[in-house]
Amino acid sequence: MAKFLTNRDENYAQWYNDLVIKADLAENSAVRGCMVIKPYGFAIWENIQRELDKMFKATGHVNAYFPLFIPKSFFSREAAHVEGFAKECAVVTHYRLKNDVSGKGIVVDPEAKLEEELIIRPTSETIIWNSYKNWIQSYRDLPILINQWCNVVRWEMRPRLFLRTAEFLWQEGHTAHATGEEAIGETVKMINVYADFAENFMALPVIKGLKSEGERFPGALDTYTIEALMQDGKVLQAGTSHFLGQNFAKAFDVQFTDKTGKLDFVWATSWGLSTRMVGALIMAHSDNHGLILPPRLAPLQIIIIPIYKLSEQLEKITEKAGIIKSDLEKAGFSVKYDDRENYKPGWKFADYELKGVPVRIAIGPRDLENDTVEIARRDTLEKETIPIKDVTAHISLLLDKIQANIFKKALKFRTENTFRVDKWNDFLEIIDNQGGFILAHWDGTTETENRIKEETKATIRCIPFEAEEEEGKCVYSGKPSKRRVLFARSY
Amino acid sequence: MAKFLTNRDENYAQWYNDLVIKADLAENSAVRGCMVIKPYGFAIWENIQRELDKMFKATGHVNAYFPLFIPKSFFSREAAHVEGFAKECAVVTHYRLKNDVSGKGIVVDPEAKLEEELIIRPTSETIIWNSYKNWIQSYRDLPILINQWCNVVRWEMRPRLFLRTAEFLWQEGHTAHATGEEAIGETVKMINVYADFAENFMALPVIKGLKSEGERFPGALDTYTIEALMQDGKVLQAGTSHFLGQNFAKAFDVQFTDKTGKLDFVWATSWGLSTRMVGALIMAHSDNHGLILPPRLAPLQIIIIPIYKLSEQLEKITEKAGIIKSDLEKAGFSVKYDDRENYKPGWKFADYELKGVPVRIAIGPRDLENDTVEIARRDTLEKETIPIKDVTAHISLLLDKIQANIFKKALKFRTENTFRVDKWNDFLEIIDNQGGFILAHWDGTTETENRIKEETKATIRCIPFEAEEEEGKCVYSGKPSKRRVLFARSY
Repeated sequence: MAKFLTNRDENYAQWYNDLVIKADLAENSAVRGCMVIKPYGFAIWENIQRELDKMFKATGHVNAYFPLFIPKSFFSREAAHVEGFAKECAVVTHYRLKNDVSGKGIVVDPEAKLEEELIIRPTSETIIWNSYKNWIQSYRDLPILINQWCNVVRWEMRPRLFLRTAEFLWQEGHTAHATGEEAIGETVKMINVYADFAENFMALPVIKGLKSEGERFPGALDTYTIEALMQDGKVLQAGTSHFLGQNFAKAFDVQFTDKTGKLDFVWATSWGLSTRMVGALIMAHSDNHGLILPPRLAPLQIIIIPIYKLSEQLEKITEKAGIIKSDLEKAGFSVKYDDRENYKPGWKFADYELKGVPVRIAIGPRDLENDTVEIARRDTLEKETIPIKDVTAHISLLLDKIQANIFKKALKFRTENTFRVDKWNDFLEIIDNQGGFILAHWDGTTETENRIKEETKATIRCIPFEAEEEEGKCVYSGKPSKRRVLFARSY
Repeated sequence: MAKFLTNRDENYAQWYNDLVIKADLAENSAVRGCMVIKPYGFAIWENIQRELDKMFKATGHVNAYFPLFIPKSFFSREAAHVEGFAKECAVVTHYRLKNDVSGKGIVVDPEAKLEEELIIRPTSETIIWNSYKNWIQSYRDLPILINQWCNVVRWEMRPRLFLRTAEFLWQEGHTAHATGEEAIGETVKMINVYADFAENFMALPVIKGLKSEGERFPGALDTYTIEALMQDGKVLQAGTSHFLGQNFAKAFDVQFTDKTGKLDFVWATSWGLSTRMVGALIMAHSDNHGLILPPRLAPLQIIIIPIYKLSEQLEKITEKAGIIKSDLEKAGFSVKYDDRENYKPGWKFADYELKGVPVRIAIGPRDLENDTVEIARRDTLEKETIPIKDVTAHISLLLDKIQANIFKKALKFRTENTFRVDKWNDFLEIIDNQGGFILAHWDGTTETENRIKEETKATIRCIPFEAEEEEGKCVYSGKPSKRRVLFARSY
């Protein structure tokens, strides 16, 4: 057990922070609120990118790149959008530094003031729709199905590594359509892509649903979301997909001629998923020994560690390990052999557990005699001894098992921590003492939503797609309600 | 021939700009100096990224991500560095907008002024070495071999699509070493990686060499470069690799304990290649019909176009095309079948020539009868008729031939436009009338270098690695010189 980690059950927030730092995923930088994503953390993000990018392309999308800077005036064009984003943005006002005449070092050159300030993109709807204006004349130019991988900046007063940082990395899809139906179809398609990715790659069970009006993206008519439960009972919004209606087309005057020759405004969607997901991955699965990474996203899937006293033993082990490694690599797995001499096996075991490597192979002198290896899985910490000839086939199955088991465990946790609540007292007690998802009736008003938030810090995470129609009474106001919605405290 | 392109030989700069726009690679944005990289242009960059990233990883490098923002004071720490970059940077001074009280829309909130201004990274040595300080204590922590893919900003007064933009995309490698020899080895290794990539993927012959002191990266002890000749006789610096000595380690106080227990400053390199390379790709190979893309980087390698009058014909062609496409895709090629009915074959031919798709397959009624197709290659515009059963094998070879031919053509052009010059009058005449590379003796002084630049706009592109030792006299000053250096006008 990694003794230098804070115990997860004693102080979850500190455990998370320790883990991010000790597993070498990320750290704070000299710039407040901005993190450095270290190589191991970035490798997880690269794997997320690779898989998502494949899924985007398989659904007909292409990548492009739009400017980092947005003219200030663009924000004013969509009322809700400026309201939502103006409060937390980085503003570029000058384009030059110069040497201070009184020798105080370098200063901003007052003569290099921009005529119009530039905002570092917090999201790119405005700059993109300003471009789409020139790209779209007729229905033949539609749909446009573009995605962009980039950095964005939203000033954060209470930053936390991966979860809330002033700068973060993400992808943002921005699509343009001839009809509202088609745009809604795209919005739903992409929330399904996110859910598919979360469940099949991140091993993260998610609940898909619609955001309430109060939780919508600024400028959207509807926001779809996937929501995932973390091990402390708080919930993380893992990806969102927005139906923007004709709001941005109207703000940037983007019209097209339809098949009948009639002019109309273009319909829009946008959807995004960010480096926050690395935080979700950590929080959903890991334990007091360190990270538990799903094999499909683990930068390193298999570690091989030699156990020996004499250097002749090491030589023989290294020979065997080389053959095993090469076989596993041929089967498409990512493998490392760690024969560093200045670290002891026990130290290495703990270190790769901390890093969440799904499978460990240990080879010692007795294994040499018996032509076996010891295989340990990170998720359950179980060990077994396997003949060398069976290693590749065994591990190939084992990685699938681990992937499935991590998902199953998270799903079981979520099931055990999802509560159907009908009484306000029960709501209060569960939120305060237990956390998790609460399925409760709501009268549909923003007023009630806000009051619940004020009194409990719980918000409506979504109106689940799978919510059944049922007559009920609002858990707070007692007014009639037709379906349960999902409440939780969230990240 | 694409009539809407300006003729390359009449106005090269305008031809280039037309081509970038008409081939849908990029366009100017609403933000001065910042471009929008459109999907087709971005797909070329994605292919460049994919291949380079493989080469970086094969040479032991890993990716990471450092903040977009650099505290202003960081720049002052390395004297040459601040001198080189402070003049052209974007400065963030505030972190909030607000509604103007007099109703003039949104304004910068004066209360949200940053204590210290933040610079948008023009390059990341300073913020990265400030992090390395905490990562390096002993020789055991070395080397660090990190690369970062990101956007950077250098304010540009005369922007040109891909070649010079205020914001551009690039990769920047930043490595840390225990000895100067090792760091120099890394610097050389990476310029060789760039040269390998340029020649084998971009089909771009390059000259590797050392920059003169006047052309060095601000903060470097030595800069290595690859230089490529464009079709207008001007030269483009295609990638650089810098030996930074201990300059940044000293500026950020990064010391390590070596094997003998002695404290020393860490040795550094950095190396970068940017979206400028897309500009080089266009300028080096393309013609009056449009782009010519090397098959290894072309987003689309093969286009199949049906030629028909009757819809029964189209049906049969589509069936054949489907089989051909599927066979080619199985062989690993990127293929599209364009059966859009609202465009004529002639229009499609011209459009895919404009886009530089290396191979075109046309299938008409006579081909159906004979079980053949017509294959046209973009580089030479030659056509031939091939039995359908041979198509995949034929094209597989043809793509290699095209790749080799584009390189050969560019190399021939460079050979024909490289001049050994000994007299100043010849230098002047060639620079003014012909362009190209001039190999001439130089006395080694910055003074002479500057004078030549003032009088001719030609700069020393590099001191080629392959320059032979030979006694000579400086083409400008007549003073003694030991080797020829490479002069040219550059982008």
